[in-house]
Amino acid sequence: MSIINLNNSDENGFEKFVDWLEDDLNEVNRFILENLAGSISLVTKLSNHIVNSGGKRIRPLLTIACAKLCGYSGSRHILHASVIEFIHTATLLHDDVVDNSKKRRGKKTANYVWDNKSSILVGDYLLSKAFKLLTSDGSMQCIKIISDVSVNISHGEVKQLLYTNNLKTTESQYLDIISDKTAQLFSAACQISAAICEIDEEKKISLSDFGKFMGISYQIVDDTLDYFCQSDELGKEIGNDFKEKKMTLPLILCYQRGNSGEKKLIEFILSKETIIECDFQKIVNIMNKYKIKSDCLAKAKHFSTMAKDSIGNFKESAEKDKIINLVDYLINRRY
Amino acid sequence: MSIINLNNSDENGFEKFVDWLEDDLNEVNRFILENLAGSISLVTKLSNHIVNSGGKRIRPLLTIACAKLCGYSGSRHILHASVIEFIHTATLLHDDVVDNSKKRRGKKTANYVWDNKSSILVGDYLLSKAFKLLTSDGSMQCIKIISDVSVNISHGEVKQLLYTNNLKTTESQYLDIISDKTAQLFSAACQISAAICEIDEEKKISLSDFGKFMGISYQIVDDTLDYFCQSDELGKEIGNDFKEKKMTLPLILCYQRGNSGEKKLIEFILSKETIIECDFQKIVNIMNKYKIKSDCLAKAKHFSTMAKDSIGNFKESAEKDKIINLVDYLINRRY
Repeated sequence: MSIINLNNSDENGFEKFVDWLEDDLNEVNRFILENLAGSISLVTKLSNHIVNSGGKRIRPLLTIACAKLCGYSGSRHILHASVIEFIHTATLLHDDVVDNSKKRRGKKTANYVWDNKSSILVGDYLLSKAFKLLTSDGSMQCIKIISDVSVNISHGEVKQLLYTNNLKTTESQYLDIISDKTAQLFSAACQISAAICEIDEEKKISLSDFGKFMGISYQIVDDTLDYFCQSDELGKEIGNDFKEKKMTLPLILCYQRGNSGEKKLIEFILSKETIIECDFQKIVNIMNKYKIKSDCLAKAKHFSTMAKDSIGNFKESAEKDKIINLVDYLINRRY
Repeated sequence: MSIINLNNSDENGFEKFVDWLEDDLNEVNRFILENLAGSISLVTKLSNHIVNSGGKRIRPLLTIACAKLCGYSGSRHILHASVIEFIHTATLLHDDVVDNSKKRRGKKTANYVWDNKSSILVGDYLLSKAFKLLTSDGSMQCIKIISDVSVNISHGEVKQLLYTNNLKTTESQYLDIISDKTAQLFSAACQISAAICEIDEEKKISLSDFGKFMGISYQIVDDTLDYFCQSDELGKEIGNDFKEKKMTLPLILCYQRGNSGEKKLIEFILSKETIIECDFQKIVNIMNKYKIKSDCLAKAKHFSTMAKDSIGNFKESAEKDKIINLVDYLINRRY
């Protein structure tokens, strides 16, 4: 289990979930490493750096879990779970360049260890490799799922860039961005298992919705932790979103709820070229006044409940219980 | 014809070639614009900026020309020619960020007009969109061609990065890099027409080879012009490759042929953090002494002859003559 980051004391639900899928997850890890090994050294090293940097592997775990939920007994889900992780990793590499990030999951980012150029090109490599792997599997339905999500992700990223430092961003616009940027890949991770298991159309839609709502919930928690988590637990600096002037939910709500003096302070800080730690603290203080943390988490919970209800048409099973537990773990996680 | 850059007085061969394919090329242009129009504003603007910035459209022209050579009467080649241009455009956007370029084809680069972030994300969008379009066409064979070439391009780009400023780079290593980075997409542009025309296996290989050798020849000419072209004809600054310390054929040959004093001068200039115009002129002087320009062009001609001979198994036709003329035009072009 060394590939999974479990430095949280409150992860019993997650640990059980991962234990259940451990064999398949190890297969995915082997498959990923095998498919990076044949490449030129820089690609292999840089990809290994990020692929093995201790993410939670939520997305490939979702693919595996949904395959189990659908009673799948084949092995194609290993390739597809790996493809999902390749796509995710490609977006992380490019995100870190776009955001100029230095740390991710407690480790130095690839663009910091190597450089932006390498991260851009290896990101391109991983995206292309994902499609090459899909071609070897041969399902047009799966290629369609991944090419659709891949377009949506880049759309979401561009929209996020456009709304940067725009205090007029609404909660709806935020939800639209995270739906494209995050939730669609969660949804694809589930849809792809539905496709290889050839379940009926109604259940395909259920799994697609399940992933989408879970992704929205996951991103809201992520964005909230970036203001309220302890830095050593999150594995990266907190306050990054604010320092990059990203319009995430906590900041949107804080600005909407602030009185005119507080609004002006927020506007002033965001107009500065460089935002420093004490600026960030001032914002957190305003957020505390308006209970932004608990309200954001309540909104995340709203979507996680929708996720759980989406799979109401799957009959009771141990697999379903475990997936429901995962949703609860992800909403309650501290990092 | 306004979309094509024809500011060269010596382009009769090319003009005739384009005239022949004009209707189809206009269709491709319409298809590209239609498929960018539905997107969010920044994506559309930035994509239009680069797609309409007056490139020669060699790659989609190859797809159209090969379809004609194979007697194709359908319309699928329009989508595929557009896909080839999307892939090419995505690599240009990322290349310009990696190389920190300010000008391309006489116009400001997208990363210079907008920023690196936008270029990275819109490049990702175009690459993903190419696969989405391929999925709508539905041919697994075509998706395989494009996913293979896409992996190869990023491999080639990474290799080029690794060999930067390495004076030990050999001519073979250079050929290997440009084969991946450039020639494979030329080859794919031809292969994809072979695939949609369902010609026999032997001719498929012929067209694949034709594109590959033409691509190698094209890139050698490109790299030679970067030392010896008049800047206003090339549409970008010359000397860029040298200033970026890229190991292209002229520099490789120059270093190999230089005497020990000249070798030391080259080493010294490349060890400087910033290379200035008079450094570049010193190198061009050494190159002139060793007839690097004419020798590089002779090597390009070697590959263009291979390209022409590759399609020896296609019977004589007006289409074949025009394609042969194109090869001759590209080897003799001045920009």
